[in-house]
Amino acid sequence: MQQIRLGIAGLGTVACGVLEIIAQRQSLIAARGGVELVVTRVASRTPKPEIDLLGASFSTDLDSLLADDVDMVIELIGGEEAALDLINAAVRADKLVVTANKAVIAKHGNELQDLRNTIGFEAAVAGAIPIISSIERGLIANRFEHVMGIINGTCNYILTAMKEEGASFADALVRAQELGYAEADPTFDVEGIDAAHKLAILLALAFDQPFNFAQLHIEGIAQVTADDIRYADELGYRIKHLGIARQVDEGIEARVHPTLVPNSQLLAHVDGVMNAVLVKCDAAGDTLYSGPGAGGSATASAVLSDVVSLAQRKGSNMRIASAGAEVSSVPILPMAQVRSGNYLRIPTKDEPGVFARVAQALSQHGISIEAAIQKEPKAGQTTVAIVMLTQMSSEADIEAAMDEVRELPQVAGEIVRIRVEGFD
Amino acid sequence: MQQIRLGIAGLGTVACGVLEIIAQRQSLIAARGGVELVVTRVASRTPKPEIDLLGASFSTDLDSLLADDVDMVIELIGGEEAALDLINAAVRADKLVVTANKAVIAKHGNELQDLRNTIGFEAAVAGAIPIISSIERGLIANRFEHVMGIINGTCNYILTAMKEEGASFADALVRAQELGYAEADPTFDVEGIDAAHKLAILLALAFDQPFNFAQLHIEGIAQVTADDIRYADELGYRIKHLGIARQVDEGIEARVHPTLVPNSQLLAHVDGVMNAVLVKCDAAGDTLYSGPGAGGSATASAVLSDVVSLAQRKGSNMRIASAGAEVSSVPILPMAQVRSGNYLRIPTKDEPGVFARVAQALSQHGISIEAAIQKEPKAGQTTVAIVMLTQMSSEADIEAAMDEVRELPQVAGEIVRIRVEGFD
Repeated sequence: MQQIRLGIAGLGTVACGVLEIIAQRQSLIAARGGVELVVTRVASRTPKPEIDLLGASFSTDLDSLLADDVDMVIELIGGEEAALDLINAAVRADKLVVTANKAVIAKHGNELQDLRNTIGFEAAVAGAIPIISSIERGLIANRFEHVMGIINGTCNYILTAMKEEGASFADALVRAQELGYAEADPTFDVEGIDAAHKLAILLALAFDQPFNFAQLHIEGIAQVTADDIRYADELGYRIKHLGIARQVDEGIEARVHPTLVPNSQLLAHVDGVMNAVLVKCDAAGDTLYSGPGAGGSATASAVLSDVVSLAQRKGSNMRIASAGAEVSSVPILPMAQVRSGNYLRIPTKDEPGVFARVAQALSQHGISIEAAIQKEPKAGQTTVAIVMLTQMSSEADIEAAMDEVRELPQVAGEIVRIRVEGFD
Repeated sequence: MQQIRLGIAGLGTVACGVLEIIAQRQSLIAARGGVELVVTRVASRTPKPEIDLLGASFSTDLDSLLADDVDMVIELIGGEEAALDLINAAVRADKLVVTANKAVIAKHGNELQDLRNTIGFEAAVAGAIPIISSIERGLIANRFEHVMGIINGTCNYILTAMKEEGASFADALVRAQELGYAEADPTFDVEGIDAAHKLAILLALAFDQPFNFAQLHIEGIAQVTADDIRYADELGYRIKHLGIARQVDEGIEARVHPTLVPNSQLLAHVDGVMNAVLVKCDAAGDTLYSGPGAGGSATASAVLSDVVSLAQRKGSNMRIASAGAEVSSVPILPMAQVRSGNYLRIPTKDEPGVFARVAQALSQHGISIEAAIQKEPKAGQTTVAIVMLTQMSSEADIEAAMDEVRELPQVAGEIVRIRVEGFD
């Protein structure tokens, strides 16, 4: 049986999960995968912890993993520069690489040598869910129409808590931090950067494109209020933070933002820290993949699936071309040309005829209204919220219409806009 | 680039879908998969139809596919004996095989030579959803706790129609037939045989077992009434036809039957002809896979993913052992030992104290009640339904308890029992 000698970089929860699984089921994995996994080296810049390294030698020097007794480097140190350096060095030393590092792949994937044949990154997107493999292999015969997903567990936890408990964003964030679902500095997650890294990877694979992280439109969830979640619910929608890549005639839409998802979609019911990716293809139709998006053992599960897959290919003459090179002329669409429905919440003075004035202003820009809620003002309040769903329009048109609405003397505060996604 | 010469058996909708996709995107698949697909032969026992065979030679003799200019046989003739013969002949002639034939794999998988290395059958379960690949590769490092799924689109369409329109089983079946979602003879689907074939395959892969079709417990959906669906809804559940394989201490539960699924589960919201499989693993946690379970192009998508995967492995020295042989001592649990909650609908005379008598009879067999509905009789009726959910019990206990309840003089008709599944 083929033996693969592993060098593990990093000793955090994912690395410990990988070591633990190999310790428990080396022979089961060998029977299932035809590959015997042997950990020969572990390197971490922090001193060796008290865990079982399965006989591997330990070093605080990451370069020790480039030695001849390592066939595959598993990069789990996190961060960006050091990880990129290690991956590059490993590839140059003719080693296979497995990484869970979404930032490195999303931002530097185009520079990495022979990425598709030498580097596994299933763990970089949506944790345990085999979404990379499903797109690259399960759906290999398809043209992709859209890939959209809940790909940040922190955002989904916060939005779920806001929905279920009527909590504010700030309170839900504190709770998420207490439970370990959000970092002390949550910027990366709640501002959508993490989701954008993942979307950049999904987009590149599904649409045979280079990695395009810099061109993504990115919004976070800090502006979403419990009121908006409640109004959306009344209209039959959940608010989810989605990464969306969609092929349209003019190019590819690529964007990360809060989104109203109709209750009829499974995606609307993916709650808490769960992730889910919905893929629409021409032959396979709509398929959805959901599961835990993070966590040491879930990520370790994905890392090991890559380890076995790459190991199985070692010694075969199979080469995947960089499909991106073939069709990379498809442009990422500027945000102004992106089309979606819109949820608008417009604070107005409680005066007769306000709704008609707003509707007229929208209509002048070709925006028609699909549904609306207008409530009586609460006791003692002189403003009232008009909530409406508009039909599909371009970003340019809805922005222009909103500029016009803002000028109305009856409008009494900031207009909130959240996009509504179509699933056809 | 490696070239793979394909011989296609059968010319139904799936085969036509395969031909069409290869015609449209041979070069895209080559770029993505590193394999050039060439159809050299097509064989079908019906005369050649007027479709483009991409330059392949046509024969009505299936054995023509065993010629030297075929590397891989794609078996899409359906049926059982002829398909099995062809697959066996192809494997003996050193060809790779891809099949969508669930009956052949479920019932004869153990006889097929070197199944895991030579035969692809992704298309045999849940259509376009890459569930086989996800279990075999994406989750390769995991111990599986349960695999359960909606794996028959006909049953799911009928149950969905009954829920949404209050239709009877018979009416919903007729509708399904009109729409082409059910066969003229629907036995195979509505009695659960088709789902059982698929479950046998999922079970073998997830639990490293031989194929055990003959040991599955199989029930269909013909006994489910619109009343039961309505009562279940009041209690917070949907009724779905599930295939369930679950590892418990004593062995593996393996069963196909209507099931109450709590609304909090995504599985409860998979409607119409959609399929979905929920997998619980020790490292990856709960992952769910949903999508179209049938259809020519969806099945063709799965067939082609197998074609590329097997082609990629050709020429490599990678061999997967038959994991089943290693751990096959785990027994399939006799149904009497299976444990589940139960939904009971008991028609009783409208007399005081009936509920207490029923509860007492159940209690004598250790069955406690978790929730119940008892309605006033409708005008002119002298019987009333008691509906209850019981806590978990063994099949043996609930059957004995029901025998006792049947003897009560107040019971006025057949007791309906539908299992309630736990998802922990």
